[in-house]
Amino acid sequence: MTDAHRGATTRESCAALDALDELAPRRADFALADGLIYLDGNSLGPLTRAARERVRATLDDEWARGLVASWNTAGWMGAPTRIGDRIARLIGAQPGEVLVADTLTILLAKLVLGALDLRPDRHVVVSDAANFHSDLYMVESIVRRAGRPITVRVIDRDTLDDELDDDVALVMLTHVDFRTGEMLDLAGVTERVHACGALMLWDFAHSTGAVPLDVTAAKVDLAAGCGYKYLNGGPGAPAFLYVRSSWQGVIENPLRGWLGHARPFDFERDYEAAPGVQSFVTSSPSVLALSALDGALDAFEGVTMAAIRAKSLALTDLFIELVEQRLAGHFEVVTPRIHARRGSQVSLRHHAAYGIVQALIERGVVGDFRAPDVCRFGFTPLYLRYVDVYDAVDRLVVVVERGEYADPRFATRRAVT
Amino acid sequence: MTDAHRGATTRESCAALDALDELAPRRADFALADGLIYLDGNSLGPLTRAARERVRATLDDEWARGLVASWNTAGWMGAPTRIGDRIARLIGAQPGEVLVADTLTILLAKLVLGALDLRPDRHVVVSDAANFHSDLYMVESIVRRAGRPITVRVIDRDTLDDELDDDVALVMLTHVDFRTGEMLDLAGVTERVHACGALMLWDFAHSTGAVPLDVTAAKVDLAAGCGYKYLNGGPGAPAFLYVRSSWQGVIENPLRGWLGHARPFDFERDYEAAPGVQSFVTSSPSVLALSALDGALDAFEGVTMAAIRAKSLALTDLFIELVEQRLAGHFEVVTPRIHARRGSQVSLRHHAAYGIVQALIERGVVGDFRAPDVCRFGFTPLYLRYVDVYDAVDRLVVVVERGEYADPRFATRRAVT
Repeated sequence: MTDAHRGATTRESCAALDALDELAPRRADFALADGLIYLDGNSLGPLTRAARERVRATLDDEWARGLVASWNTAGWMGAPTRIGDRIARLIGAQPGEVLVADTLTILLAKLVLGALDLRPDRHVVVSDAANFHSDLYMVESIVRRAGRPITVRVIDRDTLDDELDDDVALVMLTHVDFRTGEMLDLAGVTERVHACGALMLWDFAHSTGAVPLDVTAAKVDLAAGCGYKYLNGGPGAPAFLYVRSSWQGVIENPLRGWLGHARPFDFERDYEAAPGVQSFVTSSPSVLALSALDGALDAFEGVTMAAIRAKSLALTDLFIELVEQRLAGHFEVVTPRIHARRGSQVSLRHHAAYGIVQALIERGVVGDFRAPDVCRFGFTPLYLRYVDVYDAVDRLVVVVERGEYADPRFATRRAVT
Repeated sequence: MTDAHRGATTRESCAALDALDELAPRRADFALADGLIYLDGNSLGPLTRAARERVRATLDDEWARGLVASWNTAGWMGAPTRIGDRIARLIGAQPGEVLVADTLTILLAKLVLGALDLRPDRHVVVSDAANFHSDLYMVESIVRRAGRPITVRVIDRDTLDDELDDDVALVMLTHVDFRTGEMLDLAGVTERVHACGALMLWDFAHSTGAVPLDVTAAKVDLAAGCGYKYLNGGPGAPAFLYVRSSWQGVIENPLRGWLGHARPFDFERDYEAAPGVQSFVTSSPSVLALSALDGALDAFEGVTMAAIRAKSLALTDLFIELVEQRLAGHFEVVTPRIHARRGSQVSLRHHAAYGIVQALIERGVVGDFRAPDVCRFGFTPLYLRYVDVYDAVDRLVVVVERGEYADPRFATRRAVT
């Protein structure tokens, strides 16, 4: 694919690539406005038609008509693990290893505390300064609850090997950096962490549904990820966690609730953890939210992560190539060129990044801004076309050459871009 | 009202009460099937038409069209506190004291740990054996995280005064008992707890939207409640918490996340809690779920909790009276007769409770079973009619007199009844 589009810097040759694209029919699964180029699926994935239908069915058939009986008859009780199994396929996990619940930050709290209990003689958690800040806020607040003094070493991940010693209980890293799009070596890092006797917890927020993952082969201990980015599960969708089967029954959910009990409807006075990953349920997430995520996952049926990855790399290669051809010297391409180190986004550094993103939005190209100076563009192969990439750069050229980013309206940032 | 229906034990006189009922028009707000008598709104409230419209608008206008910009333009960012303010009115709280987030059990974890931090020299949490078991599972797991030894004394609440000493940090009680429907004295208990220097945390799962609450007058410190029972917010709806304004800025959220930060989109390395109750947000609940709850709350607009309470008592009085008249000796009425001690449900004890509930469901009357021997009936004044109460008892008489509860199909319990 990379070779195929090397010369494809005209709109016509991009259209030719679209005509050959095996994923092209998937675009029809999404309720995207005509003319909009949506390069922000790494922040909030768009609505799919199947998600809309599933939510409507939950409203009208399951909730309105089925009422409380739907906990059984519509399978609401089992939804967190059933939908988890659908996500398991996308990350290389086994059935029964993935659970949908809560929010990503809450799930990290559960996993960090659970992991620290498994390494009672160790006193250090290592994480990365480039993590999404919510992960760091959580880990720094939750380690105070470990029952012993724990130090969080927030490092530059390039120095990870220097930090790994026999006092490290847990390493928590984000697999694809939310700002730069840099992807870490899942198996290699996990192996090095294991060599010092620590557990490895991965944040897959910007990986799941975007890049192939094989948590089984990489011997990942624990992971959590996001339902509303590349999985398109809707704003604030429930998150998911992964607990390797060999840890199940060993690691405990520190935030116990009734739906993690072995027999929740027997109303027993004493807690007995449910078998498997179910024990990490505290109480049920919103069923409407679960249904949206469930419907959204239909878009991945019959598609391999390998096909998604091939197109993702082709799209990001094309974007970088066009930016360099047409806007040489204007941007620093922050995202690695090496495929093995690239997620499914391209980040461009520019002193006027906020204004550029805003001006592009006015021209129908939605990316986002990440402080202090990054324009971030996410590429979702299920709905993006090669011509979208061409057109996006075309408009970026206009924004830059005309200086539209300097519009005084963009002088004050809004909360979310 | 009580006097008015004293002689109203015919269906006609019930219909006459309905004709005079100022809340009767509210029934049209709900998407309830004709002929169904739904006495399980204390487990899962039914769909309202406004909730359906709000969810559809969130799908089609806000998510599909507005996409990521809707965090600003559709007010998604502010939804947890904006909807919290709508609930505040129903519990007698001030604006800015209520937040919608997470699930009830997770919110209890936040509040219990936060409260224990405020009483560092004390070592006891007192709770009630009759609490919903999820509350007890959570409190017993989370106190291990307090940083000092904490004993959870799970008592019979009638002996509460004997337990209150200067080592008690926190008392956590459920205001309306989920099994029996017994309501506790909010102000009186809170005052006694304060007298020993402890904080008071109330679980309002079976109170909110069902009985009048005045947390301000009662000087309640902390509370949490459920979105999917009498508030009709949908299965697994986000929960809410209340933090008295005088505790805000003092009590800390132990589960920190980015949306509880003072400036979440500045991506600051160090955590600084947002002012007010917003600091108890960890990350965003599902926006679809928030919209359903928001829409459901429309049914409470223009209605006072006093009017709801008056009808609730009339309905439960009528139900008890009819059961005693027509089924004398068959059931033990578990729910207190005294109005001041009754929530909005009636629980009947019977050795064949499970079969009775199932047989009633087949006759179009939905109540639920609570182990080991309770038939539980919830009465929601916004959509129930006096004739529904009459008809429900009429069918209960048939089920009991014909012994339909002994049907072999009901010999094995399903998970949720």
